[in-house]
Amino acid sequence: MKGFFDTVFHRASVRSFTSVPLTAAEVDSLMRAAMAAPSAVNKQPWDFILVDDRATLDALAAALPYAKMAAEAPFAVVACAVPSRAFERSLELAVIDTSLACENLLLAVDALGLGAVWTALYPEAGRQSEARRILGIPADVLPLAFIPIGKPRTEAVPKDKYRPELIHRGRW
Amino acid sequence: MKGFFDTVFHRASVRSFTSVPLTAAEVDSLMRAAMAAPSAVNKQPWDFILVDDRATLDALAAALPYAKMAAEAPFAVVACAVPSRAFERSLELAVIDTSLACENLLLAVDALGLGAVWTALYPEAGRQSEARRILGIPADVLPLAFIPIGKPRTEAVPKDKYRPELIHRGRW
Repeated sequence: MKGFFDTVFHRASVRSFTSVPLTAAEVDSLMRAAMAAPSAVNKQPWDFILVDDRATLDALAAALPYAKMAAEAPFAVVACAVPSRAFERSLELAVIDTSLACENLLLAVDALGLGAVWTALYPEAGRQSEARRILGIPADVLPLAFIPIGKPRTEAVPKDKYRPELIHRGRW
Repeated sequence: MKGFFDTVFHRASVRSFTSVPLTAAEVDSLMRAAMAAPSAVNKQPWDFILVDDRATLDALAAALPYAKMAAEAPFAVVACAVPSRAFERSLELAVIDTSLACENLLLAVDALGLGAVWTALYPEAGRQSEARRILGIPADVLPLAFIPIGKPRTEAVPKDKYRPELIHRGRW
């Protein structure tokens, strides 16, 4: 099994995919990893739509300006935040909790030798509206991220993002 | 090195700590893991305050109702979201991106055999105000989470949070 730190430092956004489909076991591992994330008062205010239908992936790629790479991805997850199930019905906590689940998902993708990229739906109203229309997402659910996933066509090179000047010691 | 899936499924909120301090190498690994998270257009709109001073940890524990466990933690990270550095200066993207960094941090904590718990500052104005006062955080920076970290006093048992009913296939 791939080591944790190997995974976290290897993960990079992957925007070009082969057509090889994900296996059921891979999809299961991804969903279990996503749902293992913490959430405020353990409310788990998230839902996930799994898309492997070519026509739907193509419709999303066509409708979402920053998600053109979905046209060659064999699979995608649409992560939805559900404020009505969040602690204190908080929109902000629903978004944060679902973001944590998505980070688990992105790391699990890398751990399986797959690649993915977060394309933002929230907070852009237009993109959320397109996702709602294509996927039938209810009006009180926030489409947060559209995440195409597949076998990377080329090896992604992670950026070195360590910036010690963003670390404060003791106080700001 | 601990495996990725071992880590993601082992991680649980830890609220009771021994007084053993973190090593400099541990702190370095945690910060590098946090900053390896993705962010919109790679803006990295986050800053981290590292706190190991007993008086400051105690002041935070006293001021923050859900962070009493900090009174026995040897260390904490205060994760701050910085909208002025986020893509399109978006508050929402700053919060999401910093949340992703925090999830990397929480997982790295587990991978190192340490424990941590996310206590929310954002979106509660009162808690953010207390964190600003104690730590000197500027008014245009959002204190997002106060994360006490230390060696777990007892082994935390992860919850089984897998809920297949939250997975939709093809569309909602």
